[in-house]
Amino acid sequence: MTTDPVDLTARLVQCPSVTPEEGGALVLLQDLLEGAGFACTRVDRGEVCNLFARWGDKGHARSFGFNGHTDVVPIGNPDDWTHAPFGAEIEDGFLYGRGATDMKSGVAAFAAAAIDYVTDTPPDGALILAITGDEEGDAVDGTTALLDWMSENDEQMSVCIVGEPTCPDHMGQMMKIGRRGSMNAHFTVTGKQGHSAYPHRAVNPMHAMARLMDRLASHELDQGTDHFDPSTLAVVTIDTGNPATNVIPAQTRGTVNIRFNDTHTGDALSDWLREEAEKVDAAFGTSTEVRIKISGESFLTPPGPLSDLVARAVAVETNITPEMSTTGGTSDARFVKDHCPVVEFGLVGKTMHAVDERVEIAHVHQLKAIYTRMLRDYFA
Amino acid sequence: MTTDPVDLTARLVQCPSVTPEEGGALVLLQDLLEGAGFACTRVDRGEVCNLFARWGDKGHARSFGFNGHTDVVPIGNPDDWTHAPFGAEIEDGFLYGRGATDMKSGVAAFAAAAIDYVTDTPPDGALILAITGDEEGDAVDGTTALLDWMSENDEQMSVCIVGEPTCPDHMGQMMKIGRRGSMNAHFTVTGKQGHSAYPHRAVNPMHAMARLMDRLASHELDQGTDHFDPSTLAVVTIDTGNPATNVIPAQTRGTVNIRFNDTHTGDALSDWLREEAEKVDAAFGTSTEVRIKISGESFLTPPGPLSDLVARAVAVETNITPEMSTTGGTSDARFVKDHCPVVEFGLVGKTMHAVDERVEIAHVHQLKAIYTRMLRDYFA
Repeated sequence: MTTDPVDLTARLVQCPSVTPEEGGALVLLQDLLEGAGFACTRVDRGEVCNLFARWGDKGHARSFGFNGHTDVVPIGNPDDWTHAPFGAEIEDGFLYGRGATDMKSGVAAFAAAAIDYVTDTPPDGALILAITGDEEGDAVDGTTALLDWMSENDEQMSVCIVGEPTCPDHMGQMMKIGRRGSMNAHFTVTGKQGHSAYPHRAVNPMHAMARLMDRLASHELDQGTDHFDPSTLAVVTIDTGNPATNVIPAQTRGTVNIRFNDTHTGDALSDWLREEAEKVDAAFGTSTEVRIKISGESFLTPPGPLSDLVARAVAVETNITPEMSTTGGTSDARFVKDHCPVVEFGLVGKTMHAVDERVEIAHVHQLKAIYTRMLRDYFA
Repeated sequence: MTTDPVDLTARLVQCPSVTPEEGGALVLLQDLLEGAGFACTRVDRGEVCNLFARWGDKGHARSFGFNGHTDVVPIGNPDDWTHAPFGAEIEDGFLYGRGATDMKSGVAAFAAAAIDYVTDTPPDGALILAITGDEEGDAVDGTTALLDWMSENDEQMSVCIVGEPTCPDHMGQMMKIGRRGSMNAHFTVTGKQGHSAYPHRAVNPMHAMARLMDRLASHELDQGTDHFDPSTLAVVTIDTGNPATNVIPAQTRGTVNIRFNDTHTGDALSDWLREEAEKVDAAFGTSTEVRIKISGESFLTPPGPLSDLVARAVAVETNITPEMSTTGGTSDARFVKDHCPVVEFGLVGKTMHAVDERVEIAHVHQLKAIYTRMLRDYFA
């Protein structure tokens, strides 16, 4: 049996599954997987649809998992596209459309690999596909809901490959064995309003904000670790909305985003941020409220059997040994890592989220071959 | 002849002359002054009305001037007032209404003093009243227009009293012999947009802005001079409008207001601001546009005959020797100072621009007496 991953990608791209719309994508996959003998369960939560599919025995000690998402980011202005965003048009070896790289092609590649593998050479083990409709949104009721449901129903993956695009420039270049953590801190600095001509009668929150943001931005969080780049902090906005130059405002707001490696935890960084705010408050007489949201802790699947498996499969199919990286934003691997060892490997991500998102057709075939080889090696 | 300054204040308050509306105030004054033998000219420019009035010979070596304004700031929410904002209601010794202190009472006091003085004891000299309808607004076509017209028409004041409220708490407390200069600098810092997860690929203008504003706010401009408080700099706003915490914005804007004494000029401060921006640009790789508006240079009418004249008149009528101050915001004295020596003296300014603005009736009579004594001493 041969399932064409490009055809499947095209059919998935034609489903307008902008988060949180299911758009027909999960229904299509469920039909296909059930036809190949997978036991499927829709694990919907809130307004989000998710699909759990297992081939083989529940609780098998060798359960190979794939994780991915069928939801996509909005298309923006359709007039900016040269190809219909949900048209899956093919031109010069590329398939165009929203989700073409991020990551309907990844889902298509692992679904096709899984279906063909269990059909052609039924292994002694289990294959699990955990596919969500909410990775691009809040990700509250997506992979998390799938993992919660799996835990409640004694479903377990032994290892998991997340099929996100991981290669910056060319196919096979990079896998991700961990991710930095990410957190946002929102600062509201309150002083005392007054006339610009009499600043000594006011308490200027702008001066405290400038000092605080300069201190945070100037601080070296660390110098990187064996597997991680240095952590980074970016001030992303300061807003006051004071139109009057003769008025010192009462309040101003600022936000920082931190991407942190395994040197830190979200809680320790939160303590540091609050201490810095307190120092500035003490110096300026201001009062600063700090609201923190930790999107994900940093994590690492240390180099070992799973990364070796990925590296071998990639090397055989592409002649390239993929770099083991921890760079980039967050992905659902941050949830999977609490469940089992997880590595991310997928396509070249250059056009993800962009206008005229597209995937090179040869790469989709190559990715299916890589995933197939992983399965073969894993169950060997 | 006795012109009642409280009655005149009431009639002026009843004119709804919110900048730039004339509201009947200048017409009322012109009628009154012409009746007393003043030669009046309306010096309207743009949408602003102004009134020039002279008693006595043009170009007389002893020409005593008064300057003031009849326009008022908006009333805000009328429901917040306990008295009709244009009602000129009197209660418990106070007259209520927008402009009651700032500065229809001041105009009424000097107009009443001038009319009665020239009527009762015609002096060997001239009296000039330069009254504008645009002090609270842009002040582009107000006193400036009057002074331009005077220059074109060989009209000249030898000295000038600006009748703005100058006393912080009690009558007679303070005159102003100068004012700090005021300027605004608007900084637009441009970097390079990027993803928060990859700050090394972006140039974050927020970090440059925080550093720049902290440097400016931390800098001691001077320690004050004989007649001036230390200069001050207030950051009044920083605005970015970036709602996405995973995006480093391309641009951010910030504004500072500087009140500066005679240690500085607007140009020298502009140079300093631009140098600081350049230093930060060099450090951060940003590009900062600096737009500067100098509202007024600092100026000083050094203690001498005019301030002595004011001090004597105030002391005789109130038993208080007024402090010679240069504090506060800007006033039209910043324009008059290029024309002749100028000192400001007027009422207690506590309720100016506030809801339930009001003036103590006794103070208005006292102010007329003070202005009258200045005239008597000047022409003695």
